[in-house]
Amino acid sequence: MVNYQARLDRTFAALVDPTRRAILARLEREDAVTVSELARPFAIKLPAVMKHLDVLDDAGLITRAKAGRTVTVRLRPEPMREAADWLRRYERFWSGSLDRLAAYAEAKEAAARAKERKGRS
Amino acid sequence: MVNYQARLDRTFAALVDPTRRAILARLEREDAVTVSELARPFAIKLPAVMKHLDVLDDAGLITRAKAGRTVTVRLRPEPMREAADWLRRYERFWSGSLDRLAAYAEAKEAAARAKERKGRS
Repeated sequence: MVNYQARLDRTFAALVDPTRRAILARLEREDAVTVSELARPFAIKLPAVMKHLDVLDDAGLITRAKAGRTVTVRLRPEPMREAADWLRRYERFWSGSLDRLAAYAEAKEAAARAKERKGRS
Repeated sequence: MVNYQARLDRTFAALVDPTRRAILARLEREDAVTVSELARPFAIKLPAVMKHLDVLDDAGLITRAKAGRTVTVRLRPEPMREAADWLRRYERFWSGSLDRLAAYAEAKEAAARAKERKGRS
């Protein structure tokens, strides 16, 4: 249980930064990206990107493999599953409002049908 | 877009702390809880709980209403919807592994059926 909470702490902390979220989003689209390729779209310097990669690595969200001078980064999405599952319990609030909308639409329809029947008889 | 990123920053930052997650989880189960009731299960002092409530309030995740000396806290789950939606894009990785498992089970079944037919002929 303590480990579960500590993992959630680390995952959510890793997701707080927009640069880290952008790195994860890119790795979702591309299977393996070199560090220099990952750093290219950002206005920040390479060492700053490396620090973000350290945070993502510590949170278990990426893996890094070195071949010569090239470091390739891959996504390790598993920790995000626990975070998504944690958030899932609140889903009823927004899907609930859709249910209420559907119930309202159904009630209106039933009322319209009842009125129609009354008009015919 | 900047606002969207800033909102995600704040939501994920609010979710980093296990005490804040526990407060949100309680408010998911109970509609309205007083601050002193919320503070009761925690080993930390009331001012520390109040600070966590400030963070949750700043992130738009709770509302507080004062009546006399009693402050009642309610959940405002909407910001978590964006966080859940952000995480949703990674869902294919774990639902994908379930798909692969289903495909494997189907292939095994098909092979067993083919073997059975061969045995009969």
